[in-house]
Amino acid sequence: MISSQSLLIVGSLAFDSLEMPYGTFEYVVGGSTSFASIAGSLLTRGVRIVGVVGEDFPEDYLASLRGRSIDTVGVERVPGKSFFWRGRYSADLNTRETLDTQLNVFANFQPKIPASHRATPYLLLGNIHPQLQIDVLDQMEKPEFIAVDTMNYWISSEPETLAKLLKRTDLLIINDEEARQLSGIQNISRAAQDIRKRGPSHLIIKRGEFGALLFDDAGTFFCPGFPLEEVRDPTGAGDTFAGGLLGYVARHADTSPLTLRRAMFFGSALASFCVEGVGTTRIGEVTRAELDARIQSFVRLVDYGANLTLPVEEESR
Amino acid sequence: MISSQSLLIVGSLAFDSLEMPYGTFEYVVGGSTSFASIAGSLLTRGVRIVGVVGEDFPEDYLASLRGRSIDTVGVERVPGKSFFWRGRYSADLNTRETLDTQLNVFANFQPKIPASHRATPYLLLGNIHPQLQIDVLDQMEKPEFIAVDTMNYWISSEPETLAKLLKRTDLLIINDEEARQLSGIQNISRAAQDIRKRGPSHLIIKRGEFGALLFDDAGTFFCPGFPLEEVRDPTGAGDTFAGGLLGYVARHADTSPLTLRRAMFFGSALASFCVEGVGTTRIGEVTRAELDARIQSFVRLVDYGANLTLPVEEESR
Repeated sequence: MISSQSLLIVGSLAFDSLEMPYGTFEYVVGGSTSFASIAGSLLTRGVRIVGVVGEDFPEDYLASLRGRSIDTVGVERVPGKSFFWRGRYSADLNTRETLDTQLNVFANFQPKIPASHRATPYLLLGNIHPQLQIDVLDQMEKPEFIAVDTMNYWISSEPETLAKLLKRTDLLIINDEEARQLSGIQNISRAAQDIRKRGPSHLIIKRGEFGALLFDDAGTFFCPGFPLEEVRDPTGAGDTFAGGLLGYVARHADTSPLTLRRAMFFGSALASFCVEGVGTTRIGEVTRAELDARIQSFVRLVDYGANLTLPVEEESR
Repeated sequence: MISSQSLLIVGSLAFDSLEMPYGTFEYVVGGSTSFASIAGSLLTRGVRIVGVVGEDFPEDYLASLRGRSIDTVGVERVPGKSFFWRGRYSADLNTRETLDTQLNVFANFQPKIPASHRATPYLLLGNIHPQLQIDVLDQMEKPEFIAVDTMNYWISSEPETLAKLLKRTDLLIINDEEARQLSGIQNISRAAQDIRKRGPSHLIIKRGEFGALLFDDAGTFFCPGFPLEEVRDPTGAGDTFAGGLLGYVARHADTSPLTLRRAMFFGSALASFCVEGVGTTRIGEVTRAELDARIQSFVRLVDYGANLTLPVEEESR
């Protein structure tokens, strides 16, 4: 892969046990890096991942990632068990409760960026401790565009470290509750203004099934969620969105406003596949033809003929 | 006004007492017809309203509607008090609680459509008893397009009457909870399919600040809500949306898929003004220049350059 189109993703490789209203799925392979890298690989062959797994993580799964041209040289395998999360979803799948989190090998994770990856231009830092995200940045050679995910836990427990990270962030990707928590402002538009002043020139606020808002110097942009007839498992949808978005950016080697807006459609389309299956099963089998078809459905979903002028009104008579 | 561009709105003219987190506003003029007719009047001079008010309803308010070329010949004034609603909004304004409802003169309301209005081609039936909505239809001469609003109360208490009405409805406008209740289906896309089989060829499902979905024979269309920096009072936003939508349709004398999609932007833009002030104060002062500017902001909000093709990927090397 030519390096100008490459994307480095750092985050978790994990097992998830999912208690869904229709059944329980034990030890499903997940983690932000699994979802994001598969999504990215559907748009660019330049995806590289860095992470840590334990002895229990299936080598076949890593091989399947390599089969989609994802570079796994940066994945360390160390003694012990892989990161594990157990959660229970509500009947409508809109909320979930964490039942168990075992950091395992992730507890001592120190991301080491292989020399071959340090000049990667596009970077997606999944939701891990903000100090580890900074440690990754310190190993990179002038990345062109740094996208960062985080969560409520780090916003409340590591505000100072997160503040340092935000000063080096080009694009922060969080959900609406996290935006409210980070800014202390209830209104989303004003929260976005506040957060952008803290460093990120670009901010995406995800709103679940409803879509996502992008705030940048070009203004505010909205990309809807794709209305699905069946949702099986929302786990990883946000990571899939981010991976697809950055994959599109890397494919174009461009972060102009128009490219980022288009990238949101690809991220949202891929996220809509993700939630159709448990874990990475559905996103892992998406074909290029399926993606093209969903993008076309998306185009129709927002097509108003690009003309909102009012005609001259006929005179009263 | 030439009749081919006219719009008849039937619904409530009322007083609302609004307990907002920042203060209480007593006896604010409201009701679905107030909001919808003002919104419609910003897009077409052909708005006609039918409703009932008591002796306490300000004549000045009706005069102000006439001042915007709204025909109020169909408004009856009868002995007694006007319809009254008192509600309390939550701190984030996202939910509200009804504290008092007094039907007053509305209890015996029998809509009488003046002879001059019976050939109106576009019809918006606000949220009133479905039997009254049917009574209006029975007085009309072949309207071209019948839009209907309803609510959870009628869905549960008058299912049979509502079913009859739906068979005569071209466009049903409800929110997502009402769509779930009416269909008994949690998933919005499948709920929409079910509801369209009951009669309405067009269905709009409103999702509050997030926007609205249109389902018709041309497919599914999504129009976002406009991200506002300050919301003062959500009361009447749905009625404003519907009035703006139908006003745009009447202005164009057209219900083609593209016109309806564009109409949603105008409805959504007008609703975004509505919530900026208490009652009809803000929507009542919107100028054409303000509307044009907000429509342009809306265009930017959804502008991705209308091109979502993926470029050919450069070869690996």
